[in-house]
Amino acid sequence: MATRAWSGTELEKRLRAVGAEEYHHRHPFHQLLHGGRLDLFQVQAWALNRAYYQSQIPVKDATLIARSEDPEFRRAWRRRLADHDGDLGEIGGYERWLALTDGLDLDRDLVTSAGAVLPATRFAVDAYVRFVRERPLVEAVASSLTELFAPEIISQRVSGMLAHYAFVPPESLAYFEARPPQARRDAAFALAYVKRYAKTRNCQDAVVAALRFKCSVLWAMLDALYYAYVMPGQVPPGAFMPQTPP
Amino acid sequence: MATRAWSGTELEKRLRAVGAEEYHHRHPFHQLLHGGRLDLFQVQAWALNRAYYQSQIPVKDATLIARSEDPEFRRAWRRRLADHDGDLGEIGGYERWLALTDGLDLDRDLVTSAGAVLPATRFAVDAYVRFVRERPLVEAVASSLTELFAPEIISQRVSGMLAHYAFVPPESLAYFEARPPQARRDAAFALAYVKRYAKTRNCQDAVVAALRFKCSVLWAMLDALYYAYVMPGQVPPGAFMPQTPP
Repeated sequence: MATRAWSGTELEKRLRAVGAEEYHHRHPFHQLLHGGRLDLFQVQAWALNRAYYQSQIPVKDATLIARSEDPEFRRAWRRRLADHDGDLGEIGGYERWLALTDGLDLDRDLVTSAGAVLPATRFAVDAYVRFVRERPLVEAVASSLTELFAPEIISQRVSGMLAHYAFVPPESLAYFEARPPQARRDAAFALAYVKRYAKTRNCQDAVVAALRFKCSVLWAMLDALYYAYVMPGQVPPGAFMPQTPP
Repeated sequence: MATRAWSGTELEKRLRAVGAEEYHHRHPFHQLLHGGRLDLFQVQAWALNRAYYQSQIPVKDATLIARSEDPEFRRAWRRRLADHDGDLGEIGGYERWLALTDGLDLDRDLVTSAGAVLPATRFAVDAYVRFVRERPLVEAVASSLTELFAPEIISQRVSGMLAHYAFVPPESLAYFEARPPQARRDAAFALAYVKRYAKTRNCQDAVVAALRFKCSVLWAMLDALYYAYVMPGQVPPGAFMPQTPP
């Protein structure tokens, strides 16, 4: 017996409910970060690990583009590549993230080599890229829908970082200023796509699960940061360590 | 300028040094587990998450067998499949692990569905299977060399669990009794293979990195368990929770 499909409105409601419950704005590390309760070393560790995520986003997007047979879809999704990798005369999101790590006095080679990221960061991010490579296209698109929830967290982030961390130069926060309109545009496109193509209940369950999966990637990244850098003495072998103890 | 290759003896010394530094016997969760400082719920969480690892080991081994063109190698590696999946009239390692989760009063469906494992466990284990699928064969073989260090940790585990946890039925520990001779035999085969085929210094560096990678998989699994189940209130959305608070 087939379960009845949801309407588009109902599907969107379910997707938004996943964000309300499982998006990483609820994570304790996020709350420490935005509440000004981290030191320079801990903010560095966050920015360095997140840089690996940023570096893989265009890889993920190119993977997704490569899977579509529809030129219109590919053109639309290509904006994301330009946003992250930059365009003629314009730097992209990854470069803006590096402005943040520069502003935090992190060595660029250390950041771009990704040699000191937590293994758990790498496992989580790589799982995301693989998901986009291997799952049905509509699920791969749905996994990007955390961008529905990003604009709000980003504005909290900027105000929280500026209010609390004298060591964060305001000009290093350009990434966060550029992102919200991009994220809104991208999320609207992806949401319309998912509502259009996820028409059976099985497929709708799968796209909700895809968004839940993506939330678990972001959540696991913060779990690992909390464990390694908030708890004393738990940095795993080979991962980022301060030059001098915090 | 090429760097001079190590002798087989020197390579083995480097591999053993990785184990001494980075194998998970040094992890704080391991020390809590063996020292009797966990409660039933925490031991359940460990056994449940580790069951996902166990379930993927034969998948990893079959992946490795499938990559070799050498019948002799494939025959030798096939013993591992029999060890984990069982053989005519004999249960395998995964089934023995389920005897442990049974003994800990975990629901079998909960365990075998892997629905409640930590996302970080899944990301780490899947990264291991993917490594074995994608990296050069000698590195894939080298990533199994944590078995060089397993027999010792296993005997500590059995004695620690029996001494400290009244809730662990002795007969549920059959997995650990069967493993050490298998691990010794398998590690000897893999070590000989790596010493035979990793002849350039580049390749030797890569096999050392492969073992380090594998150690980081096991380490990250215990990081995630510690964070979720030793620290209060940090279980991520959807992961294993006790029926009643511990």
